Amino acid sequence: MPDLLPYLGQAAYLQLESFQALSRVVGQVDDLSAKEKVALAAGASLSKHQGIIAEIRRRGDDPADVMKPFADAIDGFSVLTTGSDWRETLLAVEVTSGLLDDFFIRLAAGLPGDVGPRIAALLGSDGGQDGVMDVLRTEIGADPQLASRLAMWGRRLVGDTLLVARSALHLSGNTRTDEERIEPIFTELIAAHTRRMDALGLTA
Amino acid sequence: MPDLLPYLGQAAYLQLESFQALSRVVGQVDDLSAKEKVALAAGASLSKHQGIIAEIRRRGDDPADVMKPFADAIDGFSVLTTGSDWRETLLAVEVTSGLLDDFFIRLAAGLPGDVGPRIAALLGSDGGQDGVMDVLRTEIGADPQLASRLAMWGRRLVGDTLLVARSALHLSGNTRTDEERIEPIFTELIAAHTRRMDALGLTA
Repeated sequence: MPDLLPYLGQAAYLQLESFQALSRVVGQVDDLSAKEKVALAAGASLSKHQGIIAEIRRRGDDPADVMKPFADAIDGFSVLTTGSDWRETLLAVEVTSGLLDDFFIRLAAGLPGDVGPRIAALLGSDGGQDGVMDVLRTEIGADPQLASRLAMWGRRLVGDTLLVARSALHLSGNTRTDEERIEPIFTELIAAHTRRMDALGLTA
Repeated sequence: MPDLLPYLGQAAYLQLESFQALSRVVGQVDDLSAKEKVALAAGASLSKHQGIIAEIRRRGDDPADVMKPFADAIDGFSVLTTGSDWRETLLAVEVTSGLLDDFFIRLAAGLPGDVGPRIAALLGSDGGQDGVMDVLRTEIGADPQLASRLAMWGRRLVGDTLLVARSALHLSGNTRTDEERIEPIFTELIAAHTRRMDALGLTA
């Protein structure tokens, strides 16, 4: 069961980072209808961020203070997930926010009070992923070499992302108990990740 | 009276550019509550962009096709309005979108059908400017040299922005008649611009 404020702070900052990464891609994509689809996803991340910020404000707390403890770690994560071109960055946002949204939705069930279902609904709402998947499929279709590059990149991202997820957990300190708790959750997250990679024709 | 589709295409792409410029600033600002305020403004530009896109779709047209004729010119304008640091870029978005939103709201009155009032309401809706003004005032308060640098930068931006506005007009080709039509509109736009600069303590 996560503590409420750190949970909200980390979740809010992660959405802000997705928004920033997607916005950068909007500026890098030339094709206007691809730009449009990525902008829609950027807007969805921003809305999720703002929804979480609203929960923090509702409790009388300052969003900047609540996010601050997570800023450095997530900025560092964002550097790791910035690809060598916009296709890699776009896949990175899709992969990492896919994993982390799923994970934070699971954690939401353990939040105190009535905030859990609201946050789960917010994080589970349409994030413009269909459009992002379309853009990636078009790019992969146009460049046969891209598929293997993106598949490799996707595999690299999973490890880093699961470390971020792990940092959101209260661990008992008993390594064996902790692993027993985490294992089934991570197995589920990875299964969903594999389905997303499959939908792009990539081997996870 | 502007033609509907070019009007919508140019207005939509301008909002997309504001969104992109503001998103870049979000990534450059360190202070989290400033980041928050700029992100709010970025989200507002994106919503305006998406509202105009929805009008284009409602008429059965493809937003990418309708925006395309304006992409190069507006991308060039965006290069001119990117400052040497994020404070300049933020002032640039405030100045240029202030002028252009006012201008496009005026033009909306001449649009055929019922789209004009809808677009005017959309463009006139809250764009998060109060937060952006707060951020700029805080920066100016913390750095006495910044005021004169931003005042100069603001003056430079007005000329470039009025050229973009002019490009949206159907001109008769009779220079004297055209100037007589444009002059009072531009005088009004500049008066509103001067009030915005005043609110920042800057001489327009």
